[in-house]
Amino acid sequence: MIHGFTLWLTGLSGAGKSTLASAVAAVLAARGLRVEILDGDDVRTKLSQGLGYSKEDRDINVRRIGFVARLLSRNGVVAITAAISPYRDIRAAVRAQHESPFIEVFVDCPLPVLVERDRKGLYARALRGEIAHFTGINDPYEPPDAADVIVRTDRQTVDESVSAIVRELERRGLIGRAAAADSSLVEI
Amino acid sequence: MIHGFTLWLTGLSGAGKSTLASAVAAVLAARGLRVEILDGDDVRTKLSQGLGYSKEDRDINVRRIGFVARLLSRNGVVAITAAISPYRDIRAAVRAQHESPFIEVFVDCPLPVLVERDRKGLYARALRGEIAHFTGINDPYEPPDAADVIVRTDRQTVDESVSAIVRELERRGLIGRAAAADSSLVEI
Repeated sequence: MIHGFTLWLTGLSGAGKSTLASAVAAVLAARGLRVEILDGDDVRTKLSQGLGYSKEDRDINVRRIGFVARLLSRNGVVAITAAISPYRDIRAAVRAQHESPFIEVFVDCPLPVLVERDRKGLYARALRGEIAHFTGINDPYEPPDAADVIVRTDRQTVDESVSAIVRELERRGLIGRAAAADSSLVEI
Repeated sequence: MIHGFTLWLTGLSGAGKSTLASAVAAVLAARGLRVEILDGDDVRTKLSQGLGYSKEDRDINVRRIGFVARLLSRNGVVAITAAISPYRDIRAAVRAQHESPFIEVFVDCPLPVLVERDRKGLYARALRGEIAHFTGINDPYEPPDAADVIVRTDRQTVDESVSAIVRELERRGLIGRAAAADSSLVEI
């Protein structure tokens, strides 16, 4: 019986959640695990069209992602979520509903770096007041109190962050140790 | 590799979708398959709170159920859905998005029987005009043109309907034939 789990990435917009989700998914799929990514933007169109960015609507969106991650993980799938999920209490509620292991990863990048980088131009627009409820600018982000893994995407390469996550999954026995060939993938 | 599929039950309120979903799930779980039921009422609270019963809202609800069933089935799970799902085009759209087999089961029971039976009292209320958009009374139901299985719950026992569904899944090679002990469960 293959055991699933949920890898829950949380962090500000642009911190690297989607990039890391894809990169970790590739490593785990290469080890023969079933993996699904529930990306915040994608889920907004598939499960949460019509919801906005008030606390209430964000909470509903995050609970829905949590519901689907729970169904997947309890059926042997690795569910990787990549949504800002800014509120600590809702992340805790989703964790509490899980029958399977729930690993919270804080994808941490300081706000000034994100504002400077601003690949999608969203921070500039939010700072000009053109976007209401933009997390980190005019809407709260509550970092995890005790994340299972913290990656600092301003200091680490993607491969370093992936490696940190994969090592923690190995350490907990959630995935097997890499074969020699595969470990080079994440150690480079 | 275990292959999943979606067993999509459609039919009027009270026709027996949830009962059949549970009974089929028990048979498949006993054969070692991973099974999840996505029940219409349950999904309304988990994925679709705030949606009503207009065609647009019903379509969104059914598409969400389809999205989750697709994620489960392509990961080796048998997803059994039990939602009225009254519109033919949306059921077809959900089928088209599936990578895994999609088996449509028409849970058929004539409206007069349902009105007579009316276990939840909903038909009486709808006929008194107290419920808007009640499928079959003042909202449309489009039966499948070419269901993969049709069960007539006014003429068949639950075991007979379950047996018809299970035999069709066996015939298509989606599940193994029952062992002798287990087959008695569905043949009674």
